[in-house]
Amino acid sequence: MFSSNAVVKRLGTLRVVGPDGVGLLAASTQVLNHHGCNILKSEQWTDTRENICFQRVSFHYNGVANDLMDLHRKTPTLKALWDWRDRRKKIGILVSKYDHCLWELLLRHKARELDADISVVISNHETLRPVAETFGIPYHVISPTKVSATETSSILPHHEVQQLELLKDVDVVILARYMQVLSSEFLKQFPKDGIINIHHSFLPAFLGGSPHRQAHERGVKLIGATAHFTTEVLDDGPIIEQDVINCSHRDSVQQLVKKGRVLERNVLLKAIEAHLDDRIIVHGNRCVVFGD
Amino acid sequence: MFSSNAVVKRLGTLRVVGPDGVGLLAASTQVLNHHGCNILKSEQWTDTRENICFQRVSFHYNGVANDLMDLHRKTPTLKALWDWRDRRKKIGILVSKYDHCLWELLLRHKARELDADISVVISNHETLRPVAETFGIPYHVISPTKVSATETSSILPHHEVQQLELLKDVDVVILARYMQVLSSEFLKQFPKDGIINIHHSFLPAFLGGSPHRQAHERGVKLIGATAHFTTEVLDDGPIIEQDVINCSHRDSVQQLVKKGRVLERNVLLKAIEAHLDDRIIVHGNRCVVFGD
Amino acid sequence: MFSSNAVVKRLGTLRVVGPDGVGLLAASTQVLNHHGCNILKSEQWTDTRENICFQRVSFHYNGVANDLMDLHRKTPTLKALWDWRDRRKKIGILVSKYDHCLWELLLRHKARELDADISVVISNHETLRPVAETFGIPYHVISPTKVSATETSSILPHHEVQQLELLKDVDVVILARYMQVLSSEFLKQFPKDGIINIHHSFLPAFLGGSPHRQAHERGVKLIGATAHFTTEVLDDGPIIEQDVINCSHRDSVQQLVKKGRVLERNVLLKAIEAHLDDRIIVHGNRCVVFGD
Amino acid sequence: MFSSNAVVKRLGTLRVVGPDGVGLLAASTQVLNHHGCNILKSEQWTDTRENICFQRVSFHYNGVANDLMDLHRKTPTLKALWDWRDRRKKIGILVSKYDHCLWELLLRHKARELDADISVVISNHETLRPVAETFGIPYHVISPTKVSATETSSILPHHEVQQLELLKDVDVVILARYMQVLSSEFLKQFPKDGIINIHHSFLPAFLGGSPHRQAHERGVKLIGATAHFTTEVLDDGPIIEQDVINCSHRDSVQQLVKKGRVLERNVLLKAIEAHLDDRIIVHGNRCVVFGD
Repeated sequence: MFSSNAVVKRLGTLRVVGPDGVGLLAASTQVLNHHGCNILKSEQWTDTRENICFQRVSFHYNGVANDLMDLHRKTPTLKALWDWRDRRKKIGILVSKYDHCLWELLLRHKARELDADISVVISNHETLRPVAETFGIPYHVISPTKVSATETSSILPHHEVQQLELLKDVDVVILARYMQVLSSEFLKQFPKDGIINIHHSFLPAFLGGSPHRQAHERGVKLIGATAHFTTEVLDDGPIIEQDVINCSHRDSVQQLVKKGRVLERNVLLKAIEAHLDDRIIVHGNRCVVFGD
Repeated sequence: MFSSNAVVKRLGTLRVVGPDGVGLLAASTQVLNHHGCNILKSEQWTDTRENICFQRVSFHYNGVANDLMDLHRKTPTLKALWDWRDRRKKIGILVSKYDHCLWELLLRHKARELDADISVVISNHETLRPVAETFGIPYHVISPTKVSATETSSILPHHEVQQLELLKDVDVVILARYMQVLSSEFLKQFPKDGIINIHHSFLPAFLGGSPHRQAHERGVKLIGATAHFTTEVLDDGPIIEQDVINCSHRDSVQQLVKKGRVLERNVLLKAIEAHLDDRIIVHGNRCVVFGD
Repeated sequence: MFSSNAVVKRLGTLRVVGPDGVGLLAASTQVLNHHGCNILKSEQWTDTRENICFQRVSFHYNGVANDLMDLHRKTPTLKALWDWRDRRKKIGILVSKYDHCLWELLLRHKARELDADISVVISNHETLRPVAETFGIPYHVISPTKVSATETSSILPHHEVQQLELLKDVDVVILARYMQVLSSEFLKQFPKDGIINIHHSFLPAFLGGSPHRQAHERGVKLIGATAHFTTEVLDDGPIIEQDVINCSHRDSVQQLVKKGRVLERNVLLKAIEAHLDDRIIVHGNRCVVFGD
Repeated sequence: MFSSNAVVKRLGTLRVVGPDGVGLLAASTQVLNHHGCNILKSEQWTDTRENICFQRVSFHYNGVANDLMDLHRKTPTLKALWDWRDRRKKIGILVSKYDHCLWELLLRHKARELDADISVVISNHETLRPVAETFGIPYHVISPTKVSATETSSILPHHEVQQLELLKDVDVVILARYMQVLSSEFLKQFPKDGIINIHHSFLPAFLGGSPHRQAHERGVKLIGATAHFTTEVLDDGPIIEQDVINCSHRDSVQQLVKKGRVLERNVLLKAIEAHLDDRIIVHGNRCVVFGD
């Protein structure tokens, strides 16, 4: 995994979570120092209420021995996540009919602004095939199957079996305005930071369907968008990024939808960038998001 | 009411609501034109979904005859509100212990940035008396009385009777972080745009008490503030103004409270300015807020 | 031009500029009323410093007689602009190598969010041909020609002659990050609101080239983008729309460039929408931009 | 300086600047670890263009030996700044006639939101004496003296001698809309992060006097405010914080001034908080501002 060529500087990141204690930052930086890694950026924050420490370090390395992984062994109460950037992450995208988030992801990918490869786009409709094909990305249509009443909820519906097959090598799944609910079984196949969704409201306001209609009826003066990790409870997962935009009494529901599109693609993109950059630690139902 | 002195330019505003129809704007502008009023600013917007027209005109006048009021007679389906600025509006403020909104109102008033007089500050605590007295504004402490079980809900509690007495000449009541619930009977004494409240969240997220604690637990990345007219349903009245500010995982509840203060005073002030400027029309549970 | 079919509601707008006077709004609304036009939205504002009145009215019409145009005859000091939306406007785009603004315009056009047709894309490079062709829009490469010293400045360079030929039916020219200076003669062929440019700074800060490099050196904490009408003085024309985004010491010039892209496309789009919606009146070196 | 009472947790911060190298973060965290300090928050960033590393660590300590200061001795190329929070910093404020920034500072101070003591308010006018006295803060009027032509520029004018006497125990000077230019000699008495100014524009746009008038004439759609450290070149020092607010063609110069006030006090406050929190490192003409 590590070449002997000293010239190539490789980027790694280390995220650590654990009970706060004297010497934690010293421990991890010493390990890195010991292996000749040069720290580029580090950020540590202690939640003094819960007494838990969160840390992220990005560093250049070359020829790091395998015992680098052994921070955990030395400090067994810590949870340490090592990420090596010589392997680009792989993204799988689920979409339905709205195209604005898909365009954004594919354009940023094409412009080499996304530090990842897009492996596959999966949809329950044919609608967006031309978009994916513009960029030469494989596009698969998988129609939802009805779940028969006799099936227990612990069995994956057939269409999700197919989806999982297509997503098996993927590091993160993006729900880029995917309008189908995912089953509990499907979600269990992924880590808690494995699926990112974009919701078209400022959560927790306007959960569920038609948030712009709800926003219009309530007469709000701002509309929002929220990117979050997906959990079994609808629109309830840990929030990564949120933003809002002004609106007024003059905005119809349709105009809110239009204004929301610009917001959604921006918010989703910032969340994905934070994730690809290994800047997020999920803790309970909250996200620690380190600075870019 | 109107002097014969042609030199003094007085400012008036006309707000009109009514079923949309050909000639509505022509009708009101003709009435103003006929009386020699010079229009400074006008804005009209038609809700094409409900087919209702909203209009606001501000104008200079002098020696306007009383038949100016007769727009309504000519077009009986319209609701027209005339406001004459030669009479400054009067504000009554209700507070509890938090001082940031009160300071803001008193400072803006002192700096002549609020086009109104502050008649009275009423509180359920002695705490803020020194603040009001710094600016020479009367301060009254009225402690809530327990409502006995035998009293029907249609009877004003004693402390609200006292409050009403102090507020009887007031044009608008500002709840500047007043932590007591007002009775239905109390609310009935005021028009639907008679009481402005500031809530320390982005409504409809985090209704009720401790919204910053709720926001912290949900792990949101923005916190908000909402100024709205008060109705019988808690935190449910027509929204006038909203704004948000960034927060992060690093913000404790207490830090959210601190960040929120800056937001609350700004949002409340903008709402009050819109109201004093006769730029708001309440329609159902929504506010049409014309531009400044 | 106007069909007799009473069912089709057509949209028109009227923009009026002129010396303020009693009865101006009444005059124009009466003309519209007289012809059975139904006003949808109107906004008037008087610059009391210069005593000039600005007005915009949008209305439904059908079968309007030609004398509708005669507002000007009745009130000769006014300048009245009538726009009829049964003819979609035509846009011509000039680009160089940066693609983000072009993608945005073509995507919004494809999504029917731009109320106009894109007639042509002209560039000094082949680079963006595939982008235009993705949407079936004609793409022309015209290389700048050297102007010989003997030519007077009043003669159009050859490449601009070619550009003008391609742009002759166009209502508005968009410089979507076009990196060539246009000659004075070229600019004279267009009205003062005929060419919209997007500049990648918060004007008037960082005029000219490499504004992100300038911003980085100055250590600003926000970067901006400005859409303005183009005049003979570089980066000096009337400003239509501006916005900013946070940055920090951590942002390299390249990261500012990346952050700026999102800003530029949003700001440019809002400016174009205001223009297509006939919501802008240029007055001196400033833009009156009516609400959406 | 350090008590032996292990119960009291004291807060310290360490800021380090120096040439980047393997082991820098390890060195400083080891020193802290060795002395039993518990790190609460740390942030490190390397400017890879200039190869300089910036680091800030905040920590709890008790009974730290004096050799904690010796990080510098071990790594002589580093510049290390230690700050101990058991001594509250002292602020001196210079004002002229505008009161909004002064009110903000005194109110935040009174609300215990500023982690510092305000020692003195100095002005060239009597105007704001009542404001300072409301909060019991000493207020001194020192009128500027004319500098005679024979004096060399290296001599402090008499009024600045008096100011320096009043400011001699102060850690940071705040120019809260102080409208006098400070002499070079005066500035030389302070470190480069010793004086914070608030300028009422988005620097570097609209340098010098009347920025709101300049902004109005240029027809901008946003106005700004900038807090920066003061240097000999007017409005040119390292920028700490900036923000903007929307404006429109409807805003007169006076309305821009009014809108600007809210912005200025917020921006100034955020800058002061960052400074009091030891979160700023000045490097050349730029500020590294660590997260709150």
